[in-house]
Amino acid sequence: MTDNEFDIIAHFFQGRQALPAAVVTGIGDDAAILDIPPDSQLVVTMDTLNAGVHFPVDTAPADIAWKTLAVNLSDLAAMGASPRYFTLSLSLPGSDTAWLEAFATSLFAAADTYDITLVGGDTTRGPLSLSVCAFGTVARGRACTRQGARAGDRIYVTGTLGDGAVGLRIALGQLEATPQTSDYLLQRLRRPIPRVAIGVGAASYVSAMIDISDGLAADLGHILTASAVGAELAVAQLPLSAQACATVSHDEVVMLALTGGDDYELCMTVPQTQVSAFEARARQRGWPLTCVGMITEQPGLRVIRTDGSELVLGRRGYQHFSVNDTTEQSS
Amino acid sequence: MTDNEFDIIAHFFQGRQALPAAVVTGIGDDAAILDIPPDSQLVVTMDTLNAGVHFPVDTAPADIAWKTLAVNLSDLAAMGASPRYFTLSLSLPGSDTAWLEAFATSLFAAADTYDITLVGGDTTRGPLSLSVCAFGTVARGRACTRQGARAGDRIYVTGTLGDGAVGLRIALGQLEATPQTSDYLLQRLRRPIPRVAIGVGAASYVSAMIDISDGLAADLGHILTASAVGAELAVAQLPLSAQACATVSHDEVVMLALTGGDDYELCMTVPQTQVSAFEARARQRGWPLTCVGMITEQPGLRVIRTDGSELVLGRRGYQHFSVNDTTEQSS
Repeated sequence: MTDNEFDIIAHFFQGRQALPAAVVTGIGDDAAILDIPPDSQLVVTMDTLNAGVHFPVDTAPADIAWKTLAVNLSDLAAMGASPRYFTLSLSLPGSDTAWLEAFATSLFAAADTYDITLVGGDTTRGPLSLSVCAFGTVARGRACTRQGARAGDRIYVTGTLGDGAVGLRIALGQLEATPQTSDYLLQRLRRPIPRVAIGVGAASYVSAMIDISDGLAADLGHILTASAVGAELAVAQLPLSAQACATVSHDEVVMLALTGGDDYELCMTVPQTQVSAFEARARQRGWPLTCVGMITEQPGLRVIRTDGSELVLGRRGYQHFSVNDTTEQSS
Repeated sequence: MTDNEFDIIAHFFQGRQALPAAVVTGIGDDAAILDIPPDSQLVVTMDTLNAGVHFPVDTAPADIAWKTLAVNLSDLAAMGASPRYFTLSLSLPGSDTAWLEAFATSLFAAADTYDITLVGGDTTRGPLSLSVCAFGTVARGRACTRQGARAGDRIYVTGTLGDGAVGLRIALGQLEATPQTSDYLLQRLRRPIPRVAIGVGAASYVSAMIDISDGLAADLGHILTASAVGAELAVAQLPLSAQACATVSHDEVVMLALTGGDDYELCMTVPQTQVSAFEARARQRGWPLTCVGMITEQPGLRVIRTDGSELVLGRRGYQHFSVNDTTEQSS
């Protein structure tokens, strides 16, 4: 049984990955020393997950580890950045060997999957909380921000939307589904797949990109604000999973796709001049992409139903500090 | 009254600092985009402070902000790195405007003092907790690790040791002192001064360097382990403040200097060939340095009293997960 922070770091986190040559000094000094490739820029993101806020306290440690890294990788993907390094700060109420072993095994499985190396961090006593700071690199000037969308650009999303929010309602006991459907939706909630390869591969075609963590409406809204444009989304084109549609009504899946959060898919805007090359590349690589709408000069977001009427969204997505949002309990 | 995370970030944290040209994109996208100077290496550290563990819950927000950044700057200083950027993850039980304003004002005062720029982070709901990831740069190959100490090197420390631990006992109501003495020691606990200029300036003279966060014995111990050497410390040479000595017995100040933690001074080893140049530079710059001992071939740490006898330390310093350590309640 380990009983102090140095032992925890040495036993569970040190020596678990082969260090790339660019890691001059990794875990175990006051700070890591890292080489950054010439002609590249550093891309940095940080996300924290708190027990009881971002996940139920009894969530499996393997799921917590995966999701903590995945949400940060999703942010790097949204910039078109290749993952390189991450640091982890782990606050734990105590030192539970089984918990730590399951956590670390899953963390390094995710890290190895996406080719990102743990280079440092902190282990402290406190309520269960995980902060990751993730570093990627992009060729100089090639990062994708939220600012480049222009009227006429097509809007694409990866995968299916709303699954995370339906999964959350199953996890909270608010919804029921068949075991197979339930497994799929819970997996989507607990083990999101960051779209790393698509983000990096799409970067040279897109005018703006963001990851969908708070629902398509809120996250596309950030692109619209940053780019000073508007958008029209077609409800009929939203990619919804069969599993989500088998669990709640179509109208509800649509609403959760737009405002539910926890999807970790990418939303990107593609100029008309790039559309055919982009779609050809997507077909070639097997990227699961759907065109869901168009950027407009008219500001604001309009969501258009099949009958041509406008779907009015109440709140525009998940916000941690809002008190009336039905999605905030655990996401 | 702000009531959501975007408002909190926009209102309290965005636009508070002039952005250096190297910050291509700062707060407000999925990730920051940063230029790293050519021929330099990136130095990265991460430290978390939790309410009730690292500071009492009712600590002034200005002190919390200062210390959170200072402890990370201290780690950069110990590598000889110049501060550049940081990210902050702030978990808050709610959104208290007065608290946030005091916190942010102090955070940016510290950041401007040490020329470090906030480039991103996260704001979430949860028990009060602060994680900072700090980035510095050093000329390629010039970072100071814990590994270079050799037998015969002199051991130096900055400032005075033990003040943080005496201050903690005052904060916890375990000790009393005159108002002036108490103010000084509480300031040392709550507003540590990271030795940024000394760390950067000393880097070319030292063989190893570390910051003293867990007490000189434990932190020098890390150098000894990493460098596979031992050391002798002279009790008579330990730099102790008049204020600490006026508050507890000499023997107790010595013990707190060695094992108390929370000092955020630097400990460095200097080869004999560098000593005269190093001391001349220190005098010229006014660095408060004291030679406290010598690196030895014989492994282990020996602390020698004035009468030549050896002072035996029980535990070697603060460890978060140990249960019998008298310093763990709040540091």
